[in-house]
Amino acid sequence: MKKRARRLVLNDVIDATPRAAHFRMEEFDAPAPASGEILVRTIFLSLDPYIGSILRGRHMGERRPGAGDCPPGRGIGEVVASSSPLLKAGDLVRADLGWSELSLVRAEEARLIHRGRAPLSAQLGVAGMPGLTAYAGLKHLAKAREGDHVLISSAAGAVGGAAGQIARILGAERVVGIAGSAEKCALVTNDYGYDACINYKTPDWKDQLKVALPHGADIYFDNVGGDVLQTALLNLALYGRIVLCGLASQYQADERPAGPNPGLFIAKRAQVFGLVVYDYEEQQEEFTRLADDWIASGRLTAHEDRAVGLEQAPAHFERLMLGENIGKAIVVVGRE
Amino acid sequence: MKKRARRLVLNDVIDATPRAAHFRMEEFDAPAPASGEILVRTIFLSLDPYIGSILRGRHMGERRPGAGDCPPGRGIGEVVASSSPLLKAGDLVRADLGWSELSLVRAEEARLIHRGRAPLSAQLGVAGMPGLTAYAGLKHLAKAREGDHVLISSAAGAVGGAAGQIARILGAERVVGIAGSAEKCALVTNDYGYDACINYKTPDWKDQLKVALPHGADIYFDNVGGDVLQTALLNLALYGRIVLCGLASQYQADERPAGPNPGLFIAKRAQVFGLVVYDYEEQQEEFTRLADDWIASGRLTAHEDRAVGLEQAPAHFERLMLGENIGKAIVVVGRE
Repeated sequence: MKKRARRLVLNDVIDATPRAAHFRMEEFDAPAPASGEILVRTIFLSLDPYIGSILRGRHMGERRPGAGDCPPGRGIGEVVASSSPLLKAGDLVRADLGWSELSLVRAEEARLIHRGRAPLSAQLGVAGMPGLTAYAGLKHLAKAREGDHVLISSAAGAVGGAAGQIARILGAERVVGIAGSAEKCALVTNDYGYDACINYKTPDWKDQLKVALPHGADIYFDNVGGDVLQTALLNLALYGRIVLCGLASQYQADERPAGPNPGLFIAKRAQVFGLVVYDYEEQQEEFTRLADDWIASGRLTAHEDRAVGLEQAPAHFERLMLGENIGKAIVVVGRE
Repeated sequence: MKKRARRLVLNDVIDATPRAAHFRMEEFDAPAPASGEILVRTIFLSLDPYIGSILRGRHMGERRPGAGDCPPGRGIGEVVASSSPLLKAGDLVRADLGWSELSLVRAEEARLIHRGRAPLSAQLGVAGMPGLTAYAGLKHLAKAREGDHVLISSAAGAVGGAAGQIARILGAERVVGIAGSAEKCALVTNDYGYDACINYKTPDWKDQLKVALPHGADIYFDNVGGDVLQTALLNLALYGRIVLCGLASQYQADERPAGPNPGLFIAKRAQVFGLVVYDYEEQQEEFTRLADDWIASGRLTAHEDRAVGLEQAPAHFERLMLGENIGKAIVVVGRE
C-alpha cells in the first residue's frame, strides 16, 4: 500500500458553473481506518451532474463544500485496509470515494460489489446509479408498458442513454431522443437504438419533434427542464406520464428558471413524477444483476467517456458541466 | 309557454377579464325543436370560472365566442317541448343552456336529473360538476386516504369548498384551506369544517401556512396556480400528491404565468395529476346520489351566492372573475 496519495480539493466555494481551474491537487498521508471504517483505493471515479449541484449548494439540502474540501463522487474501489467485520481487504466496493486516490469510508456506507460479465466500470453507469435511475423512472413511476411511445431528453447522457434502451426492453414501440449535437444524436440512434433523435440546437427542432412523434409521447423522461420540458409537454399524448429526473438546462444558470404553466399539465391530464434515485438504493443490487444480463446479451450498451489519471478529473468534469462530453464520464484513477 | 324570451349576448370578442359591460340583453322568438332536439326553460344558470376561459379563447381548443354570441353556461331547466324520444316535456335536465331563458339542446347532450333531498340547485354545485371535480381529484387521482393532511386553495370556491369536506369524508386527518379574504376564511372554517384557513392577502401568510401544516401536506389540491402553487409545493410532504385543477391566479392575467421549477417537484418526489372533470362525466349521476346523501346527513354543505333574474348574470359573473363572490355563483333565471 502506498504511504502517500493524491486528492483534488476546491480552491474556494463555487458560485457559478464549476470549471477545471476551481480545483487543485494535493498530497496526503494514507490514513489508518478507525473502528468501523475501511480504507479504499479508488479504481474508477464517476463524474455525474449531481456533483455540480452539490458544489453549488443546490443539492437537496447537502452542505456546500468549501475551500480545501475534496469534492464528492461515487467510485468503485478496492478495500486495502479494514477495521470493520463487514468488509475485508481485497473486497470490491462502490461508495462515495470523492476525488481521491485513497479514502476512508464507513463500512456500512460502502456496498460490496462483484464482477459480472460486463466491464466493472459499467457498475458506475448503465448497470449502476444512472441505469437504476432510468429503470426506476420508467418501471416504477411511469409504469412503462408494451406499445408506449417514449420521449427522452439528454438522450446521449448516462441516464438518457440507458433510458431509451430500457424503455425498449420494457416494450416501448417508439423511442425518440433529444440531444445537443449531431454527434450525440448519432450515438443515440446508432448505438442506443433510438428510432429518432432531435438535435435541440437546430432551429426547427420543435417541428422535427412533432414529425418524430405523430401521436405524441405516452412517456416523457425529462433530464433537462426549461424550454425542452415545455416543448415536450406540448407534444405529450393525453394522459401522458412525465418523469422529472434532471435539470441539465440549469447547470450553468445563475437562477432557477420557472417551469411550465400548470394549465399545460391540466390540458394533457398529465401525470408527473419527481424522481430521486436514492429512494431506490435497495434495488441497486438486483438492478445491477439484471443490467449485467442485458449487457451480456447485447440489449443494453453504453458509451463511456474515459479520462485516465485523477489529475484529468477537473477538465473532464468541466466538459460534463458544459455538455461537451459524450457518454458516461468516468475517470480511471487506479489499476483494476 | 312564452312566445318571446330573453338571452344575453356578447358585444364583441373578449381579450381581457370579462366585465358586466361586455354583455347586452336581447329578445328572441321561442324556436321549435327540430328532430332530436328539446326546448328547455332555464331554472338555474351556473356561473363558473371555465366560462371565463372560454370567453377568452383559452379553454382546451374551444372556439372563442364573438359579437352576438350567447355565452355558454351549465344550467338546470325544464323541458318545455321535445322532438326526441329520449326526453319529454316536464323532465328536469342539466345541460349547457347558455345565458338564456330558453334554449334548444340536442337531447343526447342533456342529462335527465331527479330531485333529491338536497335543494335542486345543489346539482350545479356541491352535488354537481364542482363537487364531482373535487371528488374525482381526491378519490381517483390523489387517492386520498385515512390520516392525510390536505391543503386546498381557493377553499371558499365551489370546488374548494366541496374538496375540504369530501377530503374529511374520505378520512383526512387535517384539512387546511387558502382563500383571499377573512370573510372567505370564516366560511371555510365555520361552514366547511376546515381546521384552518390562511388568507393569502395577509403579509405573513407563508409563515402561517407552515404553522398550520407542521408536517407538510400529503395532498395539495390546486385551484389557483402561480405563487400559491409554488408556496404549496414548498410545504408539500415528501411523496406528496398534487392535483392541478384550476388557475384562478391567471383569470385576470394577460399572459400565462410560468409554473414552479421542476427541481421543486423532484426534491419532494411529488406526484402531480392534471384534472379535467369532463373525463368523469359518466360518474356524475352516481356522485350526485352520493352527495345528496352527504348533504341530507349534514356532512356536506355549500354556500350559494345567488342572483335573481337573468339580467343579473353579467354583474354576478364579473364578481366571480374578480374573486369577489363567496360560494357557488348561481343565477335564478326561472321558477322551480
